[in-house]
Amino acid sequence: MLSKAQISLINSLQHKKYRKLHNLFIVEGVKSVSEFANSSFTVDSIYATEGIWTKLNKIPHKIKSFITSDNEFKKISLLNNPQGVLALVQIPSAKVLQLESLKGGHTLLLDGIQDPGNMGTIIRTAEWFGMERIVCSPDCVDVYNPKVVQATMGSLSRLAVFYSDLHTLLMQTDLPSYGAVLNGESIYKTDFGTEGLIIMGNEGNGISEKVISAIKHPVTIPNFGKAESLNVAIATTVFCSELARKI
Amino acid sequence: MLSKAQISLINSLQHKKYRKLHNLFIVEGVKSVSEFANSSFTVDSIYATEGIWTKLNKIPHKIKSFITSDNEFKKISLLNNPQGVLALVQIPSAKVLQLESLKGGHTLLLDGIQDPGNMGTIIRTAEWFGMERIVCSPDCVDVYNPKVVQATMGSLSRLAVFYSDLHTLLMQTDLPSYGAVLNGESIYKTDFGTEGLIIMGNEGNGISEKVISAIKHPVTIPNFGKAESLNVAIATTVFCSELARKI
Repeated sequence: MLSKAQISLINSLQHKKYRKLHNLFIVEGVKSVSEFANSSFTVDSIYATEGIWTKLNKIPHKIKSFITSDNEFKKISLLNNPQGVLALVQIPSAKVLQLESLKGGHTLLLDGIQDPGNMGTIIRTAEWFGMERIVCSPDCVDVYNPKVVQATMGSLSRLAVFYSDLHTLLMQTDLPSYGAVLNGESIYKTDFGTEGLIIMGNEGNGISEKVISAIKHPVTIPNFGKAESLNVAIATTVFCSELARKI
Repeated sequence: MLSKAQISLINSLQHKKYRKLHNLFIVEGVKSVSEFANSSFTVDSIYATEGIWTKLNKIPHKIKSFITSDNEFKKISLLNNPQGVLALVQIPSAKVLQLESLKGGHTLLLDGIQDPGNMGTIIRTAEWFGMERIVCSPDCVDVYNPKVVQATMGSLSRLAVFYSDLHTLLMQTDLPSYGAVLNGESIYKTDFGTEGLIIMGNEGNGISEKVISAIKHPVTIPNFGKAESLNVAIATTVFCSELARKI
């Protein structure tokens, strides 16, 4: 039986303000909860209906557990089709991005990505293609937004996310920078070398002017049809695949 | 001023049954409506708030037009943030897929794609990469579903969609077939030649067993991380990009 206070706490975590206040975010679903429980994240508590516990993978004993009825679970779940398990996970303290750590590989820089579904899909895809970290501009959607977490399908537990001013970052590093724009060199002819920064822009407006000004290599995905634009998660996929195929 | 019957007709088109009955589907937004009005599709009527008409691109005079108030428009729009323009477009009569038309290029075959957002994104992406047609299995989501139409961002007006039994199709053609699976040859090492069929499977279950059995070349997107799967629209993007980069 959940208390009103518990239900109210969990519901409040839909909002960034309360996630910050309580330093917690919501993870839902058997697979995602199992992955966070076995990651470097600290899981605060798990709420699940009776039947679901046996499906969870190796949940450490120290995690607080609450059994809920189906009806109670509906009150805390944010999904249309709740799976019956939800975890509250601690937001890790913001790590300072070390410029040195960007060397020796490629890092994705996201400039003003607003849509939670796009952000989650980008994280999931970047992790599939072996990216170890993403740097978001401060105006990107919060990656601990429950819709982002849901769309990452657990990948958020394995990839480091930083928030940082991208223009400053680009000015401080001598790593090559490749920005996704509409009038650059074809991505299929671009040599991405062994290290560098890949910059993807906002859904409607692309990369902001200030950030564009600091990018050395404008790169374009050639258009073979008549569509005006590609979804940003789709465009990011083309960049990730191009980097991966050259390994 | 819209009649109750008009509002009720438009609302009913959210459902496949009524789209079939009236042979109409809904297109929303300035860009999409303009593109359908200037395509091979027959636009039946346009509903728009007063301010929006000047933004529409070359609307043929023969199309019935209705001016609505903002409040009326909210009653017919399916979007959270209505743009103030919506068209009813005729569903073209189902074309018979000619096997001959598949030669000389690559065609995308979709097996059981259920999610409207994925379907729409796949159509938009396929069109960007120059695909001229898509063949859907009969259990795919209806491409005239308003959420699919919305996600295609107008690309549905420029790409032919067929519904056909994929197993039968694969048995009838001698074109090479490449199926997206988890244990095939690396996509980066696959020679797709100059023509063939690319088969993408259902979001949860992949390509159905019957269709798999008729596929000649199992192909895999290598996994460089620990994610269990890729979203099907993302996986389709990797295939489209690989085909396009070899042109």
